[in-house]
Amino acid sequence: MTSTFGKIFKVSTFGESHGDVVGVVIDGCPPNLSFNLEAVQRDLDRRKPGQSSITTARKESDTVEVLSGVFESRTLGSPISLLVWNRDQKSKDYNHIKTSYRPSHADFTYQAKYGIRNWKGGGRASARETIGRVAAGAVAKDILGSWYGTEVIGFVRSIDALSLPSGPWTGGFDGIETNAVRCPDAQLAEKMVALIKEVKKEGDSLGGVVEVVVKNAPVGLGEPVFDKLDADLAKACLSIPACKGFENGTGFDGTKLRGSQHNDAFYMDEGRVRTRTNHSGGVQGGISNGEDIVVRAAFKPTATIMIDQESVNEAGDAVSVEGRGRHDPCVVPRAVPIMEAMVALTLMDHALRQNAYSPR
Amino acid sequence: MTSTFGKIFKVSTFGESHGDVVGVVIDGCPPNLSFNLEAVQRDLDRRKPGQSSITTARKESDTVEVLSGVFESRTLGSPISLLVWNRDQKSKDYNHIKTSYRPSHADFTYQAKYGIRNWKGGGRASARETIGRVAAGAVAKDILGSWYGTEVIGFVRSIDALSLPSGPWTGGFDGIETNAVRCPDAQLAEKMVALIKEVKKEGDSLGGVVEVVVKNAPVGLGEPVFDKLDADLAKACLSIPACKGFENGTGFDGTKLRGSQHNDAFYMDEGRVRTRTNHSGGVQGGISNGEDIVVRAAFKPTATIMIDQESVNEAGDAVSVEGRGRHDPCVVPRAVPIMEAMVALTLMDHALRQNAYSPR
Amino acid sequence: MTSTFGKIFKVSTFGESHGDVVGVVIDGCPPNLSFNLEAVQRDLDRRKPGQSSITTARKESDTVEVLSGVFESRTLGSPISLLVWNRDQKSKDYNHIKTSYRPSHADFTYQAKYGIRNWKGGGRASARETIGRVAAGAVAKDILGSWYGTEVIGFVRSIDALSLPSGPWTGGFDGIETNAVRCPDAQLAEKMVALIKEVKKEGDSLGGVVEVVVKNAPVGLGEPVFDKLDADLAKACLSIPACKGFENGTGFDGTKLRGSQHNDAFYMDEGRVRTRTNHSGGVQGGISNGEDIVVRAAFKPTATIMIDQESVNEAGDAVSVEGRGRHDPCVVPRAVPIMEAMVALTLMDHALRQNAYSPR
Amino acid sequence: MTSTFGKIFKVSTFGESHGDVVGVVIDGCPPNLSFNLEAVQRDLDRRKPGQSSITTARKESDTVEVLSGVFESRTLGSPISLLVWNRDQKSKDYNHIKTSYRPSHADFTYQAKYGIRNWKGGGRASARETIGRVAAGAVAKDILGSWYGTEVIGFVRSIDALSLPSGPWTGGFDGIETNAVRCPDAQLAEKMVALIKEVKKEGDSLGGVVEVVVKNAPVGLGEPVFDKLDADLAKACLSIPACKGFENGTGFDGTKLRGSQHNDAFYMDEGRVRTRTNHSGGVQGGISNGEDIVVRAAFKPTATIMIDQESVNEAGDAVSVEGRGRHDPCVVPRAVPIMEAMVALTLMDHALRQNAYSPR
Repeated sequence: MTSTFGKIFKVSTFGESHGDVVGVVIDGCPPNLSFNLEAVQRDLDRRKPGQSSITTARKESDTVEVLSGVFESRTLGSPISLLVWNRDQKSKDYNHIKTSYRPSHADFTYQAKYGIRNWKGGGRASARETIGRVAAGAVAKDILGSWYGTEVIGFVRSIDALSLPSGPWTGGFDGIETNAVRCPDAQLAEKMVALIKEVKKEGDSLGGVVEVVVKNAPVGLGEPVFDKLDADLAKACLSIPACKGFENGTGFDGTKLRGSQHNDAFYMDEGRVRTRTNHSGGVQGGISNGEDIVVRAAFKPTATIMIDQESVNEAGDAVSVEGRGRHDPCVVPRAVPIMEAMVALTLMDHALRQNAYSPR
Repeated sequence: MTSTFGKIFKVSTFGESHGDVVGVVIDGCPPNLSFNLEAVQRDLDRRKPGQSSITTARKESDTVEVLSGVFESRTLGSPISLLVWNRDQKSKDYNHIKTSYRPSHADFTYQAKYGIRNWKGGGRASARETIGRVAAGAVAKDILGSWYGTEVIGFVRSIDALSLPSGPWTGGFDGIETNAVRCPDAQLAEKMVALIKEVKKEGDSLGGVVEVVVKNAPVGLGEPVFDKLDADLAKACLSIPACKGFENGTGFDGTKLRGSQHNDAFYMDEGRVRTRTNHSGGVQGGISNGEDIVVRAAFKPTATIMIDQESVNEAGDAVSVEGRGRHDPCVVPRAVPIMEAMVALTLMDHALRQNAYSPR
Repeated sequence: MTSTFGKIFKVSTFGESHGDVVGVVIDGCPPNLSFNLEAVQRDLDRRKPGQSSITTARKESDTVEVLSGVFESRTLGSPISLLVWNRDQKSKDYNHIKTSYRPSHADFTYQAKYGIRNWKGGGRASARETIGRVAAGAVAKDILGSWYGTEVIGFVRSIDALSLPSGPWTGGFDGIETNAVRCPDAQLAEKMVALIKEVKKEGDSLGGVVEVVVKNAPVGLGEPVFDKLDADLAKACLSIPACKGFENGTGFDGTKLRGSQHNDAFYMDEGRVRTRTNHSGGVQGGISNGEDIVVRAAFKPTATIMIDQESVNEAGDAVSVEGRGRHDPCVVPRAVPIMEAMVALTLMDHALRQNAYSPR
Repeated sequence: MTSTFGKIFKVSTFGESHGDVVGVVIDGCPPNLSFNLEAVQRDLDRRKPGQSSITTARKESDTVEVLSGVFESRTLGSPISLLVWNRDQKSKDYNHIKTSYRPSHADFTYQAKYGIRNWKGGGRASARETIGRVAAGAVAKDILGSWYGTEVIGFVRSIDALSLPSGPWTGGFDGIETNAVRCPDAQLAEKMVALIKEVKKEGDSLGGVVEVVVKNAPVGLGEPVFDKLDADLAKACLSIPACKGFENGTGFDGTKLRGSQHNDAFYMDEGRVRTRTNHSGGVQGGISNGEDIVVRAAFKPTATIMIDQESVNEAGDAVSVEGRGRHDPCVVPRAVPIMEAMVALTLMDHALRQNAYSPR
């Protein structure tokens, strides 16, 4: 297991979905900065289940406590530990899969790798683990904002085939948090909600694409040749449960353009080097160039469905896994704050790494 | 700069495209294994420029030397250093861009980050840096093959809009190395070659998608929650020059399926747990499940084109960057051995990490 | 701050001495092993203050809770988090040094480095931080014992000038835990206790040397050329508060021997390669050779004394720091379980690293 | 094997003593700094064998080449690779120990760990590996000097029982490089030279203690709680071949002082916080405090002696290892530049790590 992310701003999450607690330790947070616990709680509230009619019926208050690393509302430079106690975990919901492997879940691979698993829920593979990520990401967002004016804006680009038009979204971001699916296009959002409700009735599930746009990121972040900014962003996103794809800038669509169409021409804008287009998605040669950083991640349809499925159990017998429990038909809207967090953690770590090379 | 990849099987590349040498040090190679220098040279030959009429006219013999870590054809466990001397670098080809930023190259971001760059070529951002990766990757492939029977097979899935049908390629892999574009479908390969030649005449460039299929990878590779196998594969691929996207299994297309369609049902096959479909692309919960590992990467059209482009120089003046030099109109076929190498390095490192948890 | 130790068996401590909690997360513990919470509590009891008349009057129950990573008394392979709540912290004891720097404490350097510190006690520089180390070390000792029969035995070699004779201690280890100073020589222990009581009355403090002997460590641990076993043991020991020196084998005394006296002759013993003497202290070329691993660490006299001292405050004024509060006149006996823990954590990590190189 | 040192200023050495080459890659050197190849060569000359009548008769020119990372005499920020070709390696000198284990060498432990070793010399355990360390250390010294005015001064404190008086050396450092043993006391140096010559005749060897004093190190270096500056210095020193002990400040002698004697009183000196004494050796709470950093390392007598010794061979037979070959009777003077290098590398890495926490 490797539950630590980052090289200087190091984030370690711990806790299983049906254990006592989930939490995170941030080791390497710069000292003597104002610490905003409200911002942490706000992002946890955006992540938590039971926010609306289209998410899981599980209710968690997910109230965060800070146990170390903060003194009189300022960071000490010592490890910041943040904890959320697990309250509404109903382990009896899981008795039927105690020894069976749920298709496209991590049950089989965890058992194969570790020889043991906490069958009372998803354990570490549960989305509940991401609470620690979101908490730490909120801290990173707050620091990036105060240092550089950086904004990290996530939204749902598509659910199933319902999608914003390809290319940069130019319709503004104000509407994102005003609807249950976090899509900035109100009309499309309505269709998405309707589709989710319909599929929920069928006991089935949906996937989609989340996009994160970062405004005012510092120029120069990223460490070629292996820790390129886009490479670390890809890793950050793929580490989120259910993520199966990543794009920066034009991504896969860009492979169908000619170089003469795809290249971003440089020009000067008030003394600053800028590009006419942003096909590069804010990253060139693995280093941020000052344009908006644009990344997208593909989330597969939720593996938990309310339909019986063919499977096997630990003994190697064929079994049918019943569709039971309380789960989201579509995790994509809740993935928005998680992906924002992973992007922010990546940028924060690279900002500190970049600082390292300049003597004070 | 971070030029090291891997946590146990640690690979460090060094050298600029127009310096004396490019090379790699492998620190953490298991000891007392047979060392296959021919396999290393073979993959370097697959990567090198000037292989065919559709690649760059630059000629490099790219002959590898092993300087340490090998004794009587066996690995010592000590750092293996592999070197390729640069021969045919014509720096005068670069005089015209000494102070100008080539669009969608790394010139501007390197200058912004480091305050200096070797303008005599792409420096570390050049594809020439990948020689060290391919050399180390060949070592990893060799070990994975001898330990587990693992095969790492790369091929071109698409160039521009010319693409294999979506879904797993079932037409066999024998034809890959028999054509200049490394596409397993001979007829499609011909069309691709024709398109590349046409676009080359126009001085323009093309992108495409490379797929790597890994057969017989061990079950249990990957370290949730952050060093998931697919997350590290994503990082590995995105660290390759010109890569802008990554998919595992169904990737972005999979977001348009229902959970009931996407989930991979389990069944028993000769005592082994297998899945009926492989939408997961061999990775579930961030851990390999024994099915073929399937990953794809999107490569943007080559930034170097033979057409003049709008840009600025270091002084902040508007300039026109002339199209000159010797470059590939389409790097995608040469990206195949590079991507194979990055996939192999990721698997090798995870294989060692997985071994760590069992006492000898 | 870097609060993580180890590369595979990664231990992260968190919590300030006068915050809510001190704790530790173990990331990378092998899965499916029996977890012995009693062993953890036992070592915490050996470390805790108020054990005897010669230690601090502060009373802490230091009861450990396990919050994650353990399921039905077995390790899950996921991060194990262990917590101890702070109870008897009297912050008013520290009001007098709110802005003054205590001589030879970390007050000044923390303020200089971080620009802030939790003045209500030693914060991270407090010995209280070592609770997490001792808890994790107990887990490591337990695993090493069950895998290899390894025993990690710490004792006090000297307090001030009162010392066991130089060279290997041959008098047996049974008496160590039967006296308040953890010295295996009962008569010497009495003298040490008497000296500590005397110095305590004077308000002064004492230093000493702790030795750890490891029996039945596996052959082959250690990773030349930088992560040599003795190098990592040195770092582990020096990271303990108040430690100022480290020796392996003959250490500094060995510099006064000739090579012909110092070299350890090899011989065969029941099919096993052994050495006639153990001047090497169980480590040769940075790798364990199967003999007892012998290390010693020097602990300076406790910086906190009950005598007024010359100092300065944050404003740069000369001040007198009053001797007040509740502290140990001699931390050396309580350093024994801490040093055992650091040695065990080092061995555990190297055992896993060594396993990595063999395919399963 | 782990041949990489440092977290940001990462130094990787490679090459066996009787292979083609020894070298080093520095990954993470700050960009756009002047690169001083002469300073590198100067320190290599101080390290090389055959400097004087008291060192080994082996002659090596040890001429360094820079192969990457430097452009027009400035650092590029990319990996700097430095190479020294092996010339005067007489492998026939080693035929007699092809299968025998030399006492207190790494022959047995390397064979036990790796199952193979380059028996034509010490391989990676040879002092020849330290060429890469010294080269990289010279780069670090140069940068520290230009950034902070830092000086790293090493000297021999003792050979066998011939020692400078304990406590800080106050006799000046000018004489260090004027005698063959690098002892700043000319009279003592003469005695040391005489002793070495005498012992050389006997075919025996000697140990000793090296001290390094760092002047003008920045305040605030060191990362509690595990990467304390003194902990990393201890590791750095113990990683040097033949090193068996480490002290910072008063070290082991300090354990015999009372707290009231040992504590370093603070006072103000021209607006700067200073200490009256420097028993702490420049490090408090694991962080540099601006006083001279003082560290010492114990080097055991050279294991290679010209006297026959009892041993065993790979087959498990008792053998006599003949005293043959060309080696130093006392490596201590040549350890001076090596230890300076390791101290400088440690400080350089911590300087960059400290910079990381301040936004630019």
